[in-house]
Parts: sequence; C-alpha cells; structure tokens
Amino acid sequence: MNTRQLVDFAQQLRVDSVRAADTANSGHPTSSMSAADLVAVLFAHHLRYDFERPRHPGNDRLILSKGHASPLLYAAYKAAGAVSESELLTFRREGSRLEGHPSPRRLPWVETATGSLGQGLPVGVGVALAGKRLDRTGYRVWVLCGDSELAEGSVWEAAEHAGYEHLDNLTVIVDVNRLGQRGPTRHGHDLDAYARRFQAFGWHTVEVDGHDVDAVDRAYAEAASTGGQPTAILARTLKGKGVAAVQDREGLHGKPLPDAEEAIAELGGVRDHHVDVRPPPAARMLHAVSSGHLDLPRFEIGEEAATRDAFGQALAALGGARGDVVALDGEVGDSTRAELFAKEHPDRYFECYIAEQQLVGAAVGMAARGWVPYATTFAAFLTRAHDFVRMAAVSGSGINLVGSHAGVAIGQDGPSQMGLEDLAMFRALYGTTVLYPCDANQTAKLVVAMAGLEGIRYLRTSRGDSPVIYSPTEEFPVGGSKVLRASSDDRLTIVAAGVTVHEALAAADALDGEGIQVRVIDLYSVKPVDCATLREAAEETGCLVTVEDHREEGGLGDAVLDAFTDGRPVPRLARLAVRTMPGSASPAEQLRAAGIDAQSIAAAARPLVETAVVR
Amino acid sequence: MNTRQLVDFAQQLRVDSVRAADTANSGHPTSSMSAADLVAVLFAHHLRYDFERPRHPGNDRLILSKGHASPLLYAAYKAAGAVSESELLTFRREGSRLEGHPSPRRLPWVETATGSLGQGLPVGVGVALAGKRLDRTGYRVWVLCGDSELAEGSVWEAAEHAGYEHLDNLTVIVDVNRLGQRGPTRHGHDLDAYARRFQAFGWHTVEVDGHDVDAVDRAYAEAASTGGQPTAILARTLKGKGVAAVQDREGLHGKPLPDAEEAIAELGGVRDHHVDVRPPPAARMLHAVSSGHLDLPRFEIGEEAATRDAFGQALAALGGARGDVVALDGEVGDSTRAELFAKEHPDRYFECYIAEQQLVGAAVGMAARGWVPYATTFAAFLTRAHDFVRMAAVSGSGINLVGSHAGVAIGQDGPSQMGLEDLAMFRALYGTTVLYPCDANQTAKLVVAMAGLEGIRYLRTSRGDSPVIYSPTEEFPVGGSKVLRASSDDRLTIVAAGVTVHEALAAADALDGEGIQVRVIDLYSVKPVDCATLREAAEETGCLVTVEDHREEGGLGDAVLDAFTDGRPVPRLARLAVRTMPGSASPAEQLRAAGIDAQSIAAAARPLVETAVVR
Repeated sequence: MNTRQLVDFAQQLRVDSVRAADTANSGHPTSSMSAADLVAVLFAHHLRYDFERPRHPGNDRLILSKGHASPLLYAAYKAAGAVSESELLTFRREGSRLEGHPSPRRLPWVETATGSLGQGLPVGVGVALAGKRLDRTGYRVWVLCGDSELAEGSVWEAAEHAGYEHLDNLTVIVDVNRLGQRGPTRHGHDLDAYARRFQAFGWHTVEVDGHDVDAVDRAYAEAASTGGQPTAILARTLKGKGVAAVQDREGLHGKPLPDAEEAIAELGGVRDHHVDVRPPPAARMLHAVSSGHLDLPRFEIGEEAATRDAFGQALAALGGARGDVVALDGEVGDSTRAELFAKEHPDRYFECYIAEQQLVGAAVGMAARGWVPYATTFAAFLTRAHDFVRMAAVSGSGINLVGSHAGVAIGQDGPSQMGLEDLAMFRALYGTTVLYPCDANQTAKLVVAMAGLEGIRYLRTSRGDSPVIYSPTEEFPVGGSKVLRASSDDRLTIVAAGVTVHEALAAADALDGEGIQVRVIDLYSVKPVDCATLREAAEETGCLVTVEDHREEGGLGDAVLDAFTDGRPVPRLARLAVRTMPGSASPAEQLRAAGIDAQSIAAAARPLVETAVVR
Repeated sequence: MNTRQLVDFAQQLRVDSVRAADTANSGHPTSSMSAADLVAVLFAHHLRYDFERPRHPGNDRLILSKGHASPLLYAAYKAAGAVSESELLTFRREGSRLEGHPSPRRLPWVETATGSLGQGLPVGVGVALAGKRLDRTGYRVWVLCGDSELAEGSVWEAAEHAGYEHLDNLTVIVDVNRLGQRGPTRHGHDLDAYARRFQAFGWHTVEVDGHDVDAVDRAYAEAASTGGQPTAILARTLKGKGVAAVQDREGLHGKPLPDAEEAIAELGGVRDHHVDVRPPPAARMLHAVSSGHLDLPRFEIGEEAATRDAFGQALAALGGARGDVVALDGEVGDSTRAELFAKEHPDRYFECYIAEQQLVGAAVGMAARGWVPYATTFAAFLTRAHDFVRMAAVSGSGINLVGSHAGVAIGQDGPSQMGLEDLAMFRALYGTTVLYPCDANQTAKLVVAMAGLEGIRYLRTSRGDSPVIYSPTEEFPVGGSKVLRASSDDRLTIVAAGVTVHEALAAADALDGEGIQVRVIDLYSVKPVDCATLREAAEETGCLVTVEDHREEGGLGDAVLDAFTDGRPVPRLARLAVRTMPGSASPAEQLRAAGIDAQSIAAAARPLVETAVVR
C-alpha cells in the first residue's frame, strides 16, 4: 500500500473498532485507535502470515499484549479476511469468538490469552526463543504493548531474557499513548525514558511518531534487519486518535465512544478494504517429534531416594525418548534436579535465572509453538508466577510445572522456602492436574504421564530422601490412588500423599499394634481425585483422617472432600495439615511440630475410631 | 574504625558466619562472606540504629534482601551487642530466633521477612516512601541485595517506583559476587551492566570494589549525600571471600565450609570486637494516630449500589477518622474506587501504577513503619503478588488487601479480568482474614473492622450494583454470618456470599413457591468461618447447598466444610461454583452459564431435599 492507502486502512481499523465497541456497548475503542496505524502498517507490509493455516511453521507470530485493544485486532482480522463483517459485530456477546480480550481457546490466530498486562512480552520471548533455538523456521515475533504495562516487572524480566539471548527475531512495538486507565502514565510521551530502559537491557530501540505510517514502516524494516539484538519500537501516539471528542483525553478508557455515528463520519466513514497479508516463507518443522525408547530410572523397593532426584532422572530420560520435550528452570536446577536434563539435552534446556514469571511465560510461548515444556523451581516460588499460570489456563496452554521443596519437610531453611500453598493454588485453577508422588518410581511414571495431558499439569516434589515403596513396574494412572493397607476390619482410613504417606504407614503400624486396623490411601493424584476409592473407604471404614504437608485450606483435605459434595453421606473426618508458621528445624522436628508426623496421625485417629458408631 | 579495624571487623563477621553455619551444619556462609566488608562498614560508620529501641522513629532501616546471608546479619547483630555468642550458635535450630532466613516475627530488628529473592527492595521502597512522605523523621533505608536477584522483575518495579519518587533516602547495596545458586549469573562481574539498568530507571550509581573498605565507606557517604535520587552501590565481591578453598568457586552455595576450623584460622581466628553503631538522631513520630469521628456512608435498604463503591466511600471516611490509614492502588483506582480516598487524602495516597508486586511490597513496608495500608487492584491481579502476600504472612505483616471485580459477575470483559481464584489464594495463607460482602452497608462496616485485625486482611468487592439488604446500623462481626431466611420448616440451607446472596434469596423465593422452605446464610466472613451457625443449619435442615462466584476449589464451599472436619457428622452437600472457562457475556448470562444463578440454585436444591431422609 502507498502512504494514502495505509492511512486509509488505519482509518478503517479505527472505524471498525468504534463499530464493534458501539454494538457491544462495551470495550476499549480509544486504546485501539491509538495503535491503528501501527497495526495497519504491520498487516499491510511486514507480517507474514497465512490466516487459513495458522499452524504454518513459517508464520510470523503476533501477540497483542495490550489485550483490551481487541477491537483493533479483530478489525485487522476482518480486513485480512479471517473474520466476517457480521462476526466482528458479535464482539463481546455471549458465545462469540471475539471476546473482550483475545484468547487462543477460541481464535486460532491468537498465540496466547492476554488481558492481564505485562504478559505478552514474556510469552513472546518464549516464542522467539523457540524460533531461534528450536524451530529455526525464520519466523519473526511481533508484540504490541501498551505503555502502562511497562510498569510491570515481568516486562523487564522478559527484556533481560531477550537481550541476553540476542533475540533479533523479536520486535516489541510500544503504543505510547501516554494515558493509562485512570490517567497519565509515569512518563507520558517521554519516549527516551522507555528507550533508555530497553537499551540498558541490551535492546536496539527506534523512536517514532506512531501516526506517521511511513516512519512506522521504516521502523519495522529497521527492526527486521537489526541483527544480534531485539528491537523495541517506541511509538508516540494519541489515545482515541482521529476523533476530536476523545483524542488524548482522560476518563475515556474502556468506554465506547459517546457518539459513534459522528465519530465514524469524522474518521471518513465505513470502508471495507481488504489487506493482503504477506504469506509466510516455505518452511517445515525441523523437529519431527522423535519417539525413541524410554529408559526410565528404576529404583529398588526399600532404597532411599528423593522424589526431586527421580524427577530429574525421569525428565532426562523422557527427553531422550521424546524430541519435543524441553526444560526451563529458574536458576535452581541443582535443587530441582532439572540440571540432569540440562546435562543430557543442553540444546533443549533454557536457563531463565531467578525470574519465575518469565520462566512460566517462556514455557507458555514454547507450548504455543508445539513444544512440551517442563518448567521447574521451588514450589514456594511458583506463587511468583500465579497470574501467569492463571492466564495460561485461560489460554488452554499445555505446560508442565514442577515445584520442588514441598512443605515443612524441607527442614532448616524455614518458611520462606516451603511450598505450603501450592496445592491450593494449582487446584483452584481451571483444567489443572495436580500430582504429588511419595516415591521415586511413582515420580518417574507421573513425569511421563503428565506430558500426555491437556492443560496445566503440576507435579510436587520433595527435597529429602524417602523409602521406595513401589516396584518400578507399578502403574499410576492420573486420577487414581493406591490403597497401601486394607483389611475387612479397617475402622478408619488415613489419606496421605508425598511425605505424609510414609508417616501414615508408620501410624498404621502403631495403631495396628494397639489392635486398630486402618486403611492407608496414597492419594498421589490430588486433582483429579479418585472419588470411587475414597467413597468405598468411607463406606467401609466410616471415618477418614487426611494428612498433608500443606496448609489446611485448598489442599489434600479439601480434595478428599470433593468426593462427597454431590449430596451423598460424608464420613466423619479429621484433617491434619500445617496450621502454624514454622521456623527453622530439622525435617523430623518440622513434621512433629506441624502435627503431621506418624504420632500425630495416630493421635488423631484414636478418638475418631472410639466415637465411631459400631457398625 | 580505621581501615585496619574495619578489615578486621569484616573478618570477624566472616568467622562468625562460618561458625554459625558450621554449628548448624546448614546455611549460606559463602554468600555471607562476599558481603562481610559491605556490612562491616555499614555497621561501623553509617547505620544509625538503637538496637535497644528498634521502634525508635529515627532508626535507619536495614533490609537483607539476600536473606540467605542471614549468618552475616546475625554476626553483625552479635557485634552490635544485640545477640549473644551463645544465641549466635543456635542458628537454624528448632525454637531459635535465628532462622535460616530472617523474620520480624522473631527478631525485632528485622523489617520484613526475606528469603524469597527480589522482595527486599520493593519493601524497602515502601519504607522509604513512608520515610519521605509520612514519617519525615529523616531515617535512611539500606537494602542489601544479591546480584542474582536482580533478574526478578519485582526489583525493576521497585527501581521504577523509587526513581520516579526521587527516594534519595534509599540506598541499595548490590553484592555482585557473580555466582548464583547453580552457577554464574548472567552478567558476572560486569558492574556496568547493572549500573546502566539502575541509571535508566533514574538512579544514581556507584561502582566499587566491595572488599575495599575505604572505597565502600566513601560510596556510602556519597549515597547519603546524593539528593533527588536513590543510589545503587554496585560492589564487586567474591563469594566465599577470604578462604581459598571456597573463594569464587562454583558448587558451594548454601553449604557449610568443608573445613571450618581451617577456614577460621585462615581468616585470622575468632575475635570478639564490639561495634558501636551510631545512634539515631532524636526524632518523634509526626503522625500521632489521630482518631476523629467516623462518618461512614449509609445506604438505604432497596437502593442499588456496588460494593466497590461502598468500599471507596468507606475507606475515604475511615481515612478521615484515622490518620494512620494510607491507601495504595495499582493504576485502577477508578475501578477499585480507591480514587475516592485519593481525592480526600492525597497526602496518604500512593499511586503504584501497574505493578502489583510493588503495590503489595510498598504496603508491607508502610505497615512495618506502623501505618495501616489498604492496597487495591482487581482481585484477579492480586495473583500477581501472591509470593509477596505469602512473604507478608511469614513476616506477620498487618496489611489490608482489597480485590475488586470478583467473579464471572463482571460480565463482558471476560476471564482475564475475573477474580476466580482469590478466595483460594487468600484462605490458604497463614493467619489471613477473608471477607466477601454482598451489600454496601456491610462493606462499609467490614472496611472499618479489617483495620483492627492482625495479619493479612482480604476484602473482595464486586463490580456491579446489587440491592442493599442490610440497614446501616447492622453489625457484621468478623467470623460471623447472617441468617437471612429461617423457619422451623427449613429443609435445606443455601450458603452464599457476595453476588450469590442475591441469587440465593431469589432461589429461596422460588422454592418457597413450591412449598419448600429453605434457610439462607450470608457467609460474608469466609475465613474465619462461622462454624456454629453452619453446624446448627446442618443439624436443623439436613442438607446444604453452597454457591459461589469462584472456582469450586478452595473457596466458599471448602470454607463451609471447615465446620465439619473435626469428626462430627457432615451434612449432605451440593456445591455450586464456576466450573467452566467463561467468555464474554452479560453479568446475568455469566451467572446462568456458570450455574450459580437463582435458577441453578433451585435446581440443585430440589433433588437434595427429595432424597433427604425424612426427619
């Protein structure tokens, strides 16, 4: 397109943004209007994308980090022929693919769900890393950010990562419209302020008038031709550009235009230009998913081993069998044991340093490109990435997250390092799987199983050694459990997972010595939970004790109750969990102090058994 | 102290760090040794602190962001006479105040619990902001960071905040020892790399050899005399400095020295120098807590009002009555309604822009200085600060967090903006209070009540209007509930909170029309939960339906079950919650699609009542 055509195309995007928001009576047209020229030039001249084949390996990748500007994105889709005029006007209606914020759950051209600001760039870095180091099909990654969201630390985690990795296939376009939701940003139109920051993190920067389509065109060309560095294009724009009633004015964020008809007239009326988006270059995926022999580690029953060790060994083995498995870690690979994967598969290992949001963001980006990522850090520090995991769930992203150093059982390091809320965090998220093994062979099997699941899969591992209780040939279906002790005389069931399984077995021995038979269930699959086995145990033994190295809310105890919330009778129940704030102490002292050791379990079991109605 | 004395004092700190870790057989001596000179000079010449009066308003504030270097901090406390030789050697033992990572829960000189990296500076910025804008007693804030933790985005949120606010009372000292936990950092000893980043965010920087005590001394003096900017001192150091067997070597993070005796000899043996820490200048708190008349907003029964509006009005009123209440918001004050406080009390309002970790970190810092902060953003985006809230709980910090836009009821904006996991997140944290009002008068009362509680207090507010159902004179004790419908013929109890209270009332009306009397409980206090009322309802009505605008895990439904996990009989139960991934739709459509509207409640109630055993 020539200059006049580009300008006219940008106006069409503005008009369509205004129309979509007006029809919905909801949405963010002013945030769309500021970036219309930026998107018009991108779609007309630079983006290489086949909208009929969104999975084409040569397609560029576009991420709208300022997801609230979705009307602009949808207007561009319409111009590209991917969305019809009538669908555009379903914006924000129930059942429409055109949600308030774009999501790949409904739209095949969206890489990742946005709407929580500061997440587009971290995910984009993951995609660009995949492009450089894994796919190597030459695609570019374009991320359109708002200026407000540059206050998010996650943006600077991503900037650091991209600069350090020399991701010259990555361009971030910052729509510096100077107005956030409630008023001016910290830096207004001071493009230099942003440029200095990106430069400090090793980026090439270009400052440009974001409404000068030719200048924007040149900036994109410069970004595409800059080697060795990612590029940040800092574009000075006006929010609501093109309509005097709203242009550069406060108090108009997230609101349809007061007079859409007048605005459309001022913008030159409705047009219906088609944009010919450049096709992607021919490309084929270089990583046909190899599927070799899986040589899982095997542990002997009775041997002592930490589940984190078993995880590391199993992941390395899985990496040998599956060419699509990649691993990322937050600079604690010696603790999580992800380093075992790194040693065997350095090409598929990504050190993310101490930046957990970027760790998860990069994993989401790689999953979007078809890789099967395992991202690891301490369970406690995955809370740092909670919002990223939440948005990954909105995306329907398939990622594996592994949190080590679960619970008080870590011992001396104290509460800052203890994962005590991770089960609650992961259980509450949509479509998650939560696994918590107690033994090395079980861990190895679950590491493999999780790769084949949908959605977010979480595995919780422990720091200390524990005895191997399962044979290497035992199977552990997700959604299952293992009944470790059972007899027809059982008067109570202890439900445990991870470290407390071993405490439960010791408690069962002690109670057995007192003539009290109890059942013991290893609930390694915390979500989904094995309702049938739990219900059977409740029916047969009358009462349950749950015991977990986790806070009492949202973890194993609550998961067990899930089996009894459909109107059926609920067993008598006692719940043991970590109710105090631990300090430093040895692992055994911690378990005792928290009241989740064998002695505490037995002590909780006795009164339940005594008060139970004789059947 | 002269140079020789400073050098010798630093060696003492190294020796005591080695001894503490050796006795514990656990801990991080090498990370302590790199920063020993930095701490020696600080304690000997620059810090102004009365260890006998940690609450002295003129005391400088020291935050050990690299909390794993706790042996160094404790060694310095010992030299200052605050900790005895024998207590030093209780390091990391059960019951000791000297935990693996320092915590104000046990030690009065610690501002905030650390151990999750990248949190010391955000909290320090909060303290420094309080110093500049609230306390005005002239104290300085010193934050000692590691180099690894500069990869955390939260550090750059803090750097941005401090630079923008010109916090020249804040100095960050970065112990650039080039080695992280598992190996070299990204930038090694490239001090310029860090300096460029801090400078870009508006900081003054000083690069220094961190083992040259005179140079360090000059750097601190320069920091203290630099006006208008915070200062970052980038100190080149060696991990394990002073002991050849460990100095600057990989693989020794978090491990006691292999031969402590030899190391102590190499460091010149045990000494017991006392350091005279400079006393603070005379100062008095300028903010005697004013306690004026509380003029809460009053809403008429039947009026329509959003709980977020009531929150904003009540907070503004509370600010009028209490001079120690401050508010912070993440650039969404027009949505959370924190802007109402900002208008009335601009001196006590802190705009944190879109940086939720810094938002919570600043609140923790202000709470450490005796202020009563209310920090607000969308409930969904508080997940961004999960790890900060977790560490605030470890600290025992008293902060109020308010999350608006709860649940699917927000409508068109879609899942990225919906708080659907916040109840689970806050319930699972230690010592929290979780409140979820359904009505404007109730909200106002709870806003006041939360200020007087210990620990972390969370209030969940809603976007849309709902009818006022309580009189302005009604009281809502924390831990209580309200029985809104009850009769002796009740055959079921509906437990709801927030928006679902109104749906529950409508369902009760519908069921009443069918001859089914049901009880309705407004469970506005989700944690602690009103066990007595729930148990009574279970006993009298036989079955419960819980209904919440939240995921089914960890929220209201699980809270209700807390009343029945002590071995007593549990009622038959049905749980309604958000089990799908919503898209865009109107609020009413969302409630219906999620199955938590009046019709869904009635549909869930009928079969429960039918199958219940006739009593």
